[in-house]
Amino acid sequence: MDERVLLTGAQGRVGQAILGGIADDYEWRLLDREPPAAEPDHEFVVADVTDEEEMREAMADVDVVVHLAGDPRPEAPWESVLRNNIDGARVVYEAAVDTGVEKVAFASSNHAVGHYETERKPDIYRKSSEFRLDGTELPRPSNLYGVSKAAGETLGRYYHDEHDLSVVCVRIGNLTKGHPPKDYERGQAMWLSYRDCAHLFERCIEADYGYEIVYGISDNDRKYYSLERAKEVLGYDPQDNSAEYTMGGELKDDAEREE
Amino acid sequence: MDERVLLTGAQGRVGQAILGGIADDYEWRLLDREPPAAEPDHEFVVADVTDEEEMREAMADVDVVVHLAGDPRPEAPWESVLRNNIDGARVVYEAAVDTGVEKVAFASSNHAVGHYETERKPDIYRKSSEFRLDGTELPRPSNLYGVSKAAGETLGRYYHDEHDLSVVCVRIGNLTKGHPPKDYERGQAMWLSYRDCAHLFERCIEADYGYEIVYGISDNDRKYYSLERAKEVLGYDPQDNSAEYTMGGELKDDAEREE
Repeated sequence: MDERVLLTGAQGRVGQAILGGIADDYEWRLLDREPPAAEPDHEFVVADVTDEEEMREAMADVDVVVHLAGDPRPEAPWESVLRNNIDGARVVYEAAVDTGVEKVAFASSNHAVGHYETERKPDIYRKSSEFRLDGTELPRPSNLYGVSKAAGETLGRYYHDEHDLSVVCVRIGNLTKGHPPKDYERGQAMWLSYRDCAHLFERCIEADYGYEIVYGISDNDRKYYSLERAKEVLGYDPQDNSAEYTMGGELKDDAEREE
Repeated sequence: MDERVLLTGAQGRVGQAILGGIADDYEWRLLDREPPAAEPDHEFVVADVTDEEEMREAMADVDVVVHLAGDPRPEAPWESVLRNNIDGARVVYEAAVDTGVEKVAFASSNHAVGHYETERKPDIYRKSSEFRLDGTELPRPSNLYGVSKAAGETLGRYYHDEHDLSVVCVRIGNLTKGHPPKDYERGQAMWLSYRDCAHLFERCIEADYGYEIVYGISDNDRKYYSLERAKEVLGYDPQDNSAEYTMGGELKDDAEREE
């Protein structure tokens, strides 16, 4: 309860999944470019992550930053990801160093490595496939958004090596509420339940690490991302598995298919 | 002689090393942001690599692009490398795809992986050290310039995977004219002679490849960068070795110490 956590992009989907699970466990400072949609339960700062001064102010007395803000669209145009995602990450790391923040958890993406699937799909999405990415591989982005996320990871490496900031990059899979996407093998392979998402970021706030790249997915039978590093370094203990929803035809019809 | 090669940043040090060795072997189109310092021996275009339209025009009828342009200072400020190096690389790859260029050789840098040396130096610079980087490792930039070069590599991976552009990223070591830097073990470990530099880029123009990251150094006894990939894929056959200059005290006094 004593840790103060700045959550950037608090009103986005990942932010809502995190707050849905661990809102009561920390002293949150929520940050978003847009004013709160409803009366917020926590301190709320309206700021742009590319504004150095605003970000330094937002990090006053903060222990951990969970940095989710940025343009979340896989099809986002280059100028937007260049400024909001790449420069935004740099501003966040720099402000974290300047203000004495201990750790930054950076929301990276499956799109940073999306092209590993090319020529391997759809086999790669199936339980029978032994193929695994473990976070030591070079990026192979599937779009310019993925390029921007890979750049955010590299920036994190630099701020760790140069300034001793603890940084964990979470390559988030397919976060959907309630149940995994229907009729979408890729989404089932990289499903991240809201419950596991909140738990994973709780581990990013709590654990000790230097610099890490981990995959953020549930313990899906179909997975081709290794969870070993997240389990070993962070103590991640996922509870969900998309196979439990997609076998036996139990999946509900209102499945949202989201990134 | 029939290949037309666009050389961006032609008036920089790497460009001069390349032209010093293979100026007569190709039909060059030189490009620089600054007008030619002297009457040029080749077609010369004054353009900024961040200008999409200028770059598309500069690539008309071009087979290969050797992309050296950018802010070359290891201590360059972020806004400069963000625009000139990261965005500049994106513009070059994009224009290459748009205009049907076959290959892009991208000048990356030892600074993309400089922090692998931390806690390993100075042993890593010595002949007795077995440590090798081979281009499969994740970046560990030593500065924001290095971050920008790593981002240029990732962009190249994306344009290769997505658009089938052939891309080779050359992590250039310490290029100095005449002889290796004196009293500077790191510089001797990653020395690249002008002769080997010109030959290496000749191989980048000639060889067949998909996407590659190679190290651009001479065959130095002190090396901690593997040359295997450059030899195997490009047919690189370096002639120089900094040890030949630095043993027996033969090194001249006017050694320039350059990046």
